[in-house]
This record gives sequence, structure tokens and C-alpha cells, in this order.
Amino acid sequence: MIDVDSFEPFYRNAMNLKIVLAQTDSLVGNASANFNRIFEIVTQVHNSLAFDLIVFPELCITGYPPEDLLFRRDFISESNNVIFELANIAPEIGIVVGFSEFDGEKLYNSAAVLSQGSVCAIYRKQKLPNYGVFDEQRYFTAGGEPCVFEFKGQFIGLNICEDVWNFDVVQKTKEAGADILLTLNASPFHSGKAQQRESLIGSHAKATNLPIIYVNCVGGQDELIFDGASFVANAEGEIVFRAAEFEEQISVVEFENGQPIQTICAPIYTPICSDYKALVCGIRDYVRKNGFKGAILGLSGGIDSALVLALAVDALGAENVEAVSLPSKYTLEMSSGDAKTQAEIMGVNYHSISIEPAVKAFTQMLAEIFAGTPNDTTEENIQARCRGVVLMAMSNKQGKLLLTTGNKSEMSVGYATLYGDMCGGFAPLKDVPKLLVYDLARYRNSLSPVIPERVLTRPPSAELAPNQCDSDSLPPYEILDPILARYIEQNQTADEIIAAGFMIEDVTRVIRLVDGSEYKRRQSATGIRISERAFGRDRRYPITSGYHGV
Amino acid sequence: MIDVDSFEPFYRNAMNLKIVLAQTDSLVGNASANFNRIFEIVTQVHNSLAFDLIVFPELCITGYPPEDLLFRRDFISESNNVIFELANIAPEIGIVVGFSEFDGEKLYNSAAVLSQGSVCAIYRKQKLPNYGVFDEQRYFTAGGEPCVFEFKGQFIGLNICEDVWNFDVVQKTKEAGADILLTLNASPFHSGKAQQRESLIGSHAKATNLPIIYVNCVGGQDELIFDGASFVANAEGEIVFRAAEFEEQISVVEFENGQPIQTICAPIYTPICSDYKALVCGIRDYVRKNGFKGAILGLSGGIDSALVLALAVDALGAENVEAVSLPSKYTLEMSSGDAKTQAEIMGVNYHSISIEPAVKAFTQMLAEIFAGTPNDTTEENIQARCRGVVLMAMSNKQGKLLLTTGNKSEMSVGYATLYGDMCGGFAPLKDVPKLLVYDLARYRNSLSPVIPERVLTRPPSAELAPNQCDSDSLPPYEILDPILARYIEQNQTADEIIAAGFMIEDVTRVIRLVDGSEYKRRQSATGIRISERAFGRDRRYPITSGYHGV
Repeated sequence: MIDVDSFEPFYRNAMNLKIVLAQTDSLVGNASANFNRIFEIVTQVHNSLAFDLIVFPELCITGYPPEDLLFRRDFISESNNVIFELANIAPEIGIVVGFSEFDGEKLYNSAAVLSQGSVCAIYRKQKLPNYGVFDEQRYFTAGGEPCVFEFKGQFIGLNICEDVWNFDVVQKTKEAGADILLTLNASPFHSGKAQQRESLIGSHAKATNLPIIYVNCVGGQDELIFDGASFVANAEGEIVFRAAEFEEQISVVEFENGQPIQTICAPIYTPICSDYKALVCGIRDYVRKNGFKGAILGLSGGIDSALVLALAVDALGAENVEAVSLPSKYTLEMSSGDAKTQAEIMGVNYHSISIEPAVKAFTQMLAEIFAGTPNDTTEENIQARCRGVVLMAMSNKQGKLLLTTGNKSEMSVGYATLYGDMCGGFAPLKDVPKLLVYDLARYRNSLSPVIPERVLTRPPSAELAPNQCDSDSLPPYEILDPILARYIEQNQTADEIIAAGFMIEDVTRVIRLVDGSEYKRRQSATGIRISERAFGRDRRYPITSGYHGV
Repeated sequence: MIDVDSFEPFYRNAMNLKIVLAQTDSLVGNASANFNRIFEIVTQVHNSLAFDLIVFPELCITGYPPEDLLFRRDFISESNNVIFELANIAPEIGIVVGFSEFDGEKLYNSAAVLSQGSVCAIYRKQKLPNYGVFDEQRYFTAGGEPCVFEFKGQFIGLNICEDVWNFDVVQKTKEAGADILLTLNASPFHSGKAQQRESLIGSHAKATNLPIIYVNCVGGQDELIFDGASFVANAEGEIVFRAAEFEEQISVVEFENGQPIQTICAPIYTPICSDYKALVCGIRDYVRKNGFKGAILGLSGGIDSALVLALAVDALGAENVEAVSLPSKYTLEMSSGDAKTQAEIMGVNYHSISIEPAVKAFTQMLAEIFAGTPNDTTEENIQARCRGVVLMAMSNKQGKLLLTTGNKSEMSVGYATLYGDMCGGFAPLKDVPKLLVYDLARYRNSLSPVIPERVLTRPPSAELAPNQCDSDSLPPYEILDPILARYIEQNQTADEIIAAGFMIEDVTRVIRLVDGSEYKRRQSATGIRISERAFGRDRRYPITSGYHGV
């Protein structure tokens, strides 16, 4: 239990206040590493800049989300106790950090204000999200009270993330005497989220006539991307400062007479650009934080692996990426050619290994047992799995992460081979529908041409049978993707989708495929979430299920 | 929104009451199938038995747990509306069912009392578990009030599952006037759970002087097993009736002057027997509910696959199980021999396919790239993955479920090959530590000898390298298993485990292996939960993690 010492501000009635927004990336699970990083930042900023208060994101001591690590006694006790050490590193300024507070019995998602060598205030998050990707009621007890502390003559209120999305919490913090509202956040990205935050929280600032400082964390953590884009809204709800998206950034905002002064706003990226940057951030941080020596992927000559290669190179540098072409007798010349061309353009290590010897071996091994049965997807799966074995062997031997290249459309309908092309530790496109794969590839080529044009224009094919096309098994992506978005992301019923103008045959076919593919998704690699409902923490379906969407 | 009609009991002050406990299995996600089943049971029992009230388990209309299907409008509306139809099937009796109640805005985990063609009472669960395997606060709003209804002169209170574990809820239901407490449950099995339930709920019965009727569901649902073992405790807390474990059962208990009359209690199985039966139930229901044509598994001659074969045959019948031996040059004669012997004893379809041609093909395909590198686990993994390809091909071709045979000890320390021996749709032993594997095998042999004795006595080996033994890579299972139980199931710290008498070297080694294997577990097949913390819904760890248990 942390005792909150009575707090004596050292000079009252100052009219100006400089607040540093520390938009940082924490490593989930390592309180001492995160403490060291905070220590380093505070020391560094303190040496180079005059300021009063520095604010770090929600749960910056544990990283977010710490998940069931919060049930480990050594972890919560370390995360709790490290706060005391922080109080002493720069006594004359105020440091605000998010941490898991353990009072000996219950756990709170809290923010501490540290100054003059002691803990001056602690706020306990009141609204614990337990929907979508969030499970906070599994771990934390909700706080019941607003918290306003006096600092250099200003009364500053504290909120944590979900709190500030609830007008009543903001309102009550204002009523408790806040002149400025500080919010600590770990708000994960999805497409359009930055705009959504500024719009809603700006409106709360305006309605309560309360400037709001919004400090978000940044970086990739398994499927989640934290996009930063910290901001300050003035009492009119106008955004007077915005930090960059997808980057750590330490920024200072000055308050004069209780109002923030307009300063430089980083641009909000276009949707396609922020999606691209989110994917790059996700790959970079998964590889870096898990200590891989680089990444490897199968490069087929198709659009999915072409995009993943571009993303991986942008995330890790060409020298850390290896591409492998794995042709079979069904692989067209143009596929191998385009794969090689892109690998050369991007300057990555490239190999080509025919899978035919392994396919032949398995075919012979199974000949007796399969005698008299017609060819079916079994034979296609064998090819995909031979590729998986080769790629995994290269990954194992070199300590490189295998990136699996399937997209969200495929993951939705199960158009992928379990233990085949689904092999891999991380799935960058898991939440990227096929049409968006094309858009992202075109976007990347608009920066510099890296993906051969033919890859963008030829009809997509798995090349597991002669002259195979995706459209043999699936409706065209122009039909498929919108049906999937309605069924999966918007939870629409079949009737609603049909009413929106889609053909009953297409809707029925697609929904049946989605309903029947849960078992594949359950064993799929973690991938990057960019939509409001990815196949991960925010979509929890039973495998055994009698539900039929049609 | 369901209106609760005012309820007129048709004869008051009757001293006797016959209550039917319907310990049934529902199919998650299919409200109409579950309705039909309830209809069928009520009709059947009604025709053959005089009784007053029939009680079904918690959420028997949706199945448990319905997970995110509860976000689908068509599903929740069907699950809600089906209640009205039930009210009319046998007007002169009372039917109590658990259902997801949707009031147009919020969702409740509710119980409805149906009689005389109308809904006589609705109770909304007050305590929503959001820990362990439970996520009920993700879906439901908690009810705030007790519910007592009058039925044939008796005042009957309603509770749902978690409620009755809380003394204050039981107490308040009593205070609201209940003479008898009816509880609807979906309480998942773990070893010793039946005894735990009877002991705690019996003590609540005694403390409140209130007879408690506990109706549990039964059957396997993905990783969860519901064990039934419904019971009745009298007002002294004594168990006067118990239904069988792991079986559907319709039983009648008579109340005389408000007290239940002692009747036949099914035995509570020994721990080893209930674990075995739980595993059989899990396999049977996964195969049946998912519509597989049977099961297939790789039979190595080792203890794990030997036990899985026995379980599968007991669950599905020998005619529905196929065993495949997949020898390599490292497979000992005795392994192949013992595999064949067991397959013959158990009367299953058996094949032996050498993996050497495929291993050789991959070795040659990778020779150039791997030139100059020493052999390591990569080469071992290739063998395991070749087995995976063959087994998956047979599974795909025949529509049979591939059972993966790894145990909890291996899953804990990552002693398994991803996409190799981890291939498979269902993992019966995922929550069974190696020492318990031996105990279960001995238990099964005590019923009738099916596993060759040598399989039980020889040292365990993965046979992926010459003369390999598990003990080359891992501490002996007598050391490993207790450390794992303390670290994973009991969340003990390294210091606590060392203080309990384990060597620091062993503890350090084991914890490092566990911490580093999360990525493998994330892509592992769903398996049956028999402990208080399995690798599934009740253990949610980040892959990317700076946490080190040592």
C-alpha cells in the first residue's frame, strides 16, 4: 500500500506551467526495464529543458496489456514498489506515471503523482473496460473517486483512458476542482482512431470548459498497436498540440493562465498511410521485443507476400529480411520471375527452392493408403505444408521470425492451409482484407516502386492446382470483402447484409465459410490489429458451435 | 423484453413437491436445437412421471459458454424468444430454464419459470464471474434482486451458478422468503470440483437452513467439460441426492413438508477415474458435436499416444479410430512393436508409414542453404513435421479429427514441435502432466490391459535423434511436474518454489522454458481442461513479454 503524503506545492499562484508529454513505449512485463527507461527520459529531459510536470502513459510501469502477469505476486509487487524510487529522481519537478497499484489485497489501475521525494497523489481508474480487446475487470478493482491535486498553483485532475471517454467522469473531475485534466492512456490503434479520440475528447473539453492533456503510449505489443498521437485540447475543444503517430516523442506544452498555448501539431496521416505505418510498427516491435535476428518469408509472386516483404523491409531493413521462393509444378514462370524481381529491387537475401522432391516423397508414401481416392484439397494442402516445413527449417536454423503472409479475407473464410501457408510466428496481414492489401501495395509503390506492376494486376491464385484462381473457390473480392466486413466487423445478420444489396447465394456461401473456419483461426499466428474487430482478443468464438449465421 | 405475468398457483398449501433435475447437454450456439431437446425431454418425462417442476441448467437455451455469439442480434433474439414457446408445452407443470434475456438494451444471464402458458418469474444472475475461464462481465449486466416465486404452496428461490458460491446471495434469497433454493448451473469440471461444490454449497444450505437443489449441465464444449453431478442438499447440509458424473440424467427428488427425501446418490468417482472420464467425455463430445467421421492419431510406441489411443477408443469405439505409426531411422524396434501390439489389442485400423523418404527429400532440398551448419533441433523438427504432413493428409482425406498427443509437461516447457507433433485439431492431454499420464494409463490398464507394459516402464523418448531421452533435455518428471504445478497452476514465485525444497538450477531452467514457450502454446490445439489452470481461457499471457520468472 502506498501512502499518499500530504503535498506542499513549492511556489503557489504561478500562472505558467510547462508540461511534458512523454509518449513512450514500454515493454510488457518488465517493471525494472520500464523504470530505467522512465528514469533515463526524466533525467535527459530535465537536463535539457525547463519544465514543471512530465506525464507518462497508462500502466507505463507494467506495459499494456500485462494480461495474467498481473496474477504473479513478484511482478505486481515490483511494479508497485518501483514508484517510490521514481519519487526521488527529480524532486523539484512532478512526474506522473501509470502503474498497477497493489494495496495488499486489491489491484488498481492507477496513476501516481511524484514530487519532492514523495507520492503526492494517487488516482484509481474508475471505468474499467471489459469489452473488445479489453479485460480490465478480470484484474482490477475500480476506483470510486475523482482526484485533483494542486501543483504550482494549478488544480490538476487525473483520468485514465476509458474514464475520459465517459462524460460524467470528466464532469465530476471538473466539479472536484480541476482546472486542467491530465489523462494517461494506453489506447490501441484502429483505422480512424486518432480522429475519433480528438473529436470525442475535444467535445468533452469544450462541454466542461476544461483543457485536456491526452498522453498515449506507442509501439506494438503482440496484436495491438499503440499509435501515440498524444494531444492537447484547449477549453474550447480545439487541438492545440498533437504528437506524431507511431513514434516515441517527448514534447512540451506550455500553459499560460491555465490555458495551453498553441504549438506545432504533427499531421494526422491519411487512413492508408496510418494503416501502413501501423503494420510497419507492428512487425518492427514484434521482431525487436522478441529478440529475433530478422525475418524470413515465402515470396510467391502474389500480392500478399509482396506486400509483407515491403512492410518487413521498411520495418527491419533489407539486411534483416530473407525471401524464399518455393515453386512447385503449378507455379507459373511469371510468379517466380516477379518474386525474384521484387527481391532484387528490395535488396534482400533471396533463395529459390523447389518443393517438388518433398511433394513427390509424400505422394509416394501415401499412395497405398490413398489408392482409389480422387484428388482433392488434401493434395493441395500437402504442397502448402511442404513449403511450411522448408520455411520453418530456415527459421529454426537462423533464429529468424517466419512471417506468414495470409490476409484477413483468407483467414475469414479459411482459404489457407493449417500448418502450411499458415506457418509462422507473426501474421502482418491477418487483419487486412484483400482489397486493402492491394491499396496498401499501391500506396507503398507510390512512395517508391518496389512491387512489380504485374503482381498488382494479375488475378490472384494460390497456385496449388493447374490454372487455379481464387475466384474458383470464392466470390470476387469486391463482393467478398464487404460481406465479411458486415458479418465480422459490424456483426450484421445475413438478412441485414442481403437487405444491403448482396445476393443471397453469396451471403450464404460466405457466412458458412466463416462459421466453419473457427478451428483454423484458433491455431493461427498472432497478427496486427488495424480494424475495430480483428481475429484476436476482440473476437472470441467457440469452435464447437451450432450457430449458423444463415 | 419478457413481461412477467402475475402468477396464480393452482393449488396452494400442498405439502409435497416433486422436482425433476434435468442434467442435460446443450449445443452452444443453437437455440432452436436446444429448445427442441428441452421440449422432447419435458414431453417424455411428463408422459412417464408425475412431477411438479422440472429444472434445466444455466443458459441451457444458448449452451455454455456462448462467448461472442452473444453479440449476434439474431442469436440473442432467438434465444430470448424461444422462452415463450416453452411456456405452452406443459401448462400444468413448471419448467425452469436458463436463458440469455435481452430487454432491448441489456443482456442478462437469467432463469425463467414457465407455467400455465406464461412466464411466471424471471431471475437475473447477480454475481457474474469474470475470472479464470469466465468472461461474463463482457456480455451480461448483473441483476440486483433476489427472486422467490410461489409454486404449489412452496416459496422457491432462484440462484444461478456463481450466486450460490456467495453466502450473502443465498442468505438474501432466504430473507426474501425462500423455503427451497433452486440453482441453475454451468459449472465446469476440474479435478476435485464435485466435492468442492457439495462441501461449500452444503455448508450454505446448513447455515441458512435452506434445502438447495443444484442442477448442473453436462458434456464437453471445446476445452471445458461440464461434469453434471447435480445434487440436492437438505437443510442440514447433507447430500440426499446426487446424479451421475459425465452423463445426461433426468432424476426426480421429492420434497415432503419442504424437506427433500433421501434417495439414491450416484457415487463420486475417485480423482483418477473422474479425470479419465472427463477426458473420454471431452473427446467424444468434440468429435460428435463437430461432426467428424472419427479420429486419427500418430501412435509412436510412447506413453502419451498410447493413452490417447485408449481414451479415443473408449470415447468413440474402435471402429472410429485409426492409428498410424510413423517410424524414422531413430525409431527403435520396440517402439514400432509396442504401437502395433496396442493397435491390435484395441482393434483399431492401423498403418505404418516410414517418414524417411520425406526427411531425405527435405534434407537434400536444404543441403545447399544449410551447408556448413551443425545439426541442431532444426533437423529434429523436420522429422516431427514430416509426421504432421502425413497425419494431416490422412485427416483431410477422410474427414477424421487428428488428435495431437502432447501432454501438459511438454506444452509447459515447449518440448514439442510446432506444426509437427503439435499438429491436430484437439489435444486430449494438453492439461495432463506426464506423471498423471502414467497414472491414467495404469488406471486404464487396471480395467482391462490395453497398453503394453513396456510402454509404461521404458524411459520416455522423442526418438528424434540417436538414443535420445526426455531426461537429456528436461529434469526428471518427478522434479519437473511439481515445479510446473507450482509455477503455472499455483502462480508461485521462483523463491517460493525453491523454498519448498527444489534446486535453484532446476527451478531456473524450468521457469525459463515456460516463459519462453508462450508462442508455441498460442498456436496449439484446444485441449481438455482438468486442472484449475489449463493452457486456455484461464491462462492469458502475452507472447511479447519482458517478464522473467527468474
